[in-house]
Amino acid sequence: PGAQVVDITHLVSAHNILEAVFILASSVRFFPQGTIHVAVVDPGVGGRRRPIVVETENYIFVGPDNGIFTGALKGESVRKIIHITNREYMLPSVSHTFHGRDIFAPVAAHLSRGVRPDAFGPEVKELERVDIPHPAVTEKTLQGEVIYIDGFGNLITNIEGRMLEDVGPDNLTVEIKGVTMEGLSSSYEEGREGRPIAIVGSTGFLEIALYRKRASEALGVCPGEMVVVRKGG
Amino acid sequence: PGAQVVDITHLVSAHNILEAVFILASSVRFFPQGTIHVAVVDPGVGGRRRPIVVETENYIFVGPDNGIFTGALKGESVRKIIHITNREYMLPSVSHTFHGRDIFAPVAAHLSRGVRPDAFGPEVKELERVDIPHPAVTEKTLQGEVIYIDGFGNLITNIEGRMLEDVGPDNLTVEIKGVTMEGLSSSYEEGREGRPIAIVGSTGFLEIALYRKRASEALGVCPGEMVVVRKGG
Amino acid sequence: PGAQVVDITHLVSAHNILEAVFILASSVRFFPQGTIHVAVVDPGVGGRRRPIVVETENYIFVGPDNGIFTGALKGESVRKIIHITNREYMLPSVSHTFHGRDIFAPVAAHLSRGVRPDAFGPEVKELERVDIPHPAVTEKTLQGEVIYIDGFGNLITNIEGRMLEDVGPDNLTVEIKGVTMEGLSSSYEEGREGRPIAIVGSTGFLEIALYRKRASEALGVCPGEMVVVRKGG
Repeated sequence: PGAQVVDITHLVSAHNILEAVFILASSVRFFPQGTIHVAVVDPGVGGRRRPIVVETENYIFVGPDNGIFTGALKGESVRKIIHITNREYMLPSVSHTFHGRDIFAPVAAHLSRGVRPDAFGPEVKELERVDIPHPAVTEKTLQGEVIYIDGFGNLITNIEGRMLEDVGPDNLTVEIKGVTMEGLSSSYEEGREGRPIAIVGSTGFLEIALYRKRASEALGVCPGEMVVVRKGG
Repeated sequence: PGAQVVDITHLVSAHNILEAVFILASSVRFFPQGTIHVAVVDPGVGGRRRPIVVETENYIFVGPDNGIFTGALKGESVRKIIHITNREYMLPSVSHTFHGRDIFAPVAAHLSRGVRPDAFGPEVKELERVDIPHPAVTEKTLQGEVIYIDGFGNLITNIEGRMLEDVGPDNLTVEIKGVTMEGLSSSYEEGREGRPIAIVGSTGFLEIALYRKRASEALGVCPGEMVVVRKGG
Repeated sequence: PGAQVVDITHLVSAHNILEAVFILASSVRFFPQGTIHVAVVDPGVGGRRRPIVVETENYIFVGPDNGIFTGALKGESVRKIIHITNREYMLPSVSHTFHGRDIFAPVAAHLSRGVRPDAFGPEVKELERVDIPHPAVTEKTLQGEVIYIDGFGNLITNIEGRMLEDVGPDNLTVEIKGVTMEGLSSSYEEGREGRPIAIVGSTGFLEIALYRKRASEALGVCPGEMVVVRKGG
């Protein structure tokens, strides 16, 4: 009962593992060492996917082995992967449809009280992966895609801001659905006159935004839409 | 300030007492003994319905006397029902429209600090009830209805899983809106090929689901829709 | 980690500062002295608007200087306004688009551990304001407007209940979009027969409601719609 529980979000689109991968990749590093991260986007619940605990140098992750932690584990050094099988640490009756309640939350609670990961089951070697797709890079262009639409309708792409650092913000154009943006903006407010802007957002990725409007609706863009950055303006 | 506050949900459909009955019935038993449950779905706020405290062997419930606790109290042994009248434990100014803030939360706070239920007002004997309707049972069929559509669009019925235990999961059919499902599935994943499945879900009730889709929208089903289970295949 | 974090809402309409002004004005007084209020509705993030700390006799406010605290500060005696500039108390890397994470939350965390407001930057004298518009008052009428539509579709106006106290609840009419309500109701239930009612709601403001229905949709009303109260029936 003394545990500090932080709810990052309950608003992941249903069944959207890639969206969860992205949200976790953007969030976990803001939590202190020793945090236990429980994440459940779990369309395969009750089927063949394994319930797992992943221990890294900084954190412990608890959830389904369906790739949900792929992004969060990038840059973390994995110490141990445990397949949760020990029913002693689950609720007495485990449903076929809600392992968040019946397995993952109880396991996290036991972890928070000092139970070691090994106690939950056998060690395994491999994890499922769901990778955020990489942009295609040529000398003059980066071709990426929209991977996530945030709560404000901003279009988050898979093009990392640091990929653009050698070019400089004024020396490039960004294209999406026939719309071209000249250069990178440094605040949403620069879109005040109503045209879409390109900006490196708080996740570190390039995003396309409309000042006080939903770019997703105004431009009719869904995840998967192609985005092209051309260097040298 | 040391109280552990857990928010089960703020997403009950407006004014839908039956939905709250169902959610509370599915949730309260996962909380430890001594938990104070505050629930407010309260279209009659400020009118004739009474504010109440219900003390049982395991829990204390605080909210409007409009039947909201009917399901949660099933299986609990009720010790005392108190009609909250003592203004000393309410906010100084009680509005006509927000007793959650002005009465129920302050009463719960006082309870958490050890004030006894009797302090809040006189004992009463009867509670309003809002019962989840029972399915009609014949030798060969159970006829129930959809009582709740969850956040994933799954159709939760009023047919309890244990009513089907004597039949066996392969020896029955489930029908809704002209669609027939053969047997019970044991995971959502079994619906991978795109057909609706019937499964006993995490609430203990029979539900109808579509893998990674909203069954409610695909089948055009609202709460109240008839569901028939036929035994013997 | 020992801080008590209370989430008032994450459901303010995107970019709607006036809505946030209203919600804060209605909420802050229910929190104990010493509370640190962090509020972020921030379309100007990364632009010219300043990040600020406002210290009053009862509270500390942290957020953007865009008027968001105007209503909350009404009736509070302001002691000091600080322009947050000291990067020592921000996250190491400050994004252009998410000062809630990179500046306001860390500043609030430091405040909760006893850092004094002065430590965050220089004192400033003026704040931006976003005022809830005042109703126009004549001897016989008050002409206001809908300023907020709550989660139930109730229409909250800018006419304060205490402005009507000298008239008496039965001695007035309320008009909106050609619909006239006779007198004030004292509970939503009085609208049981299906007609809209006028009631002084939990915020202290006059509101128009439909029993168990969304008045906003039934009457086709958006924020800004004119509301007229006529005294003397």
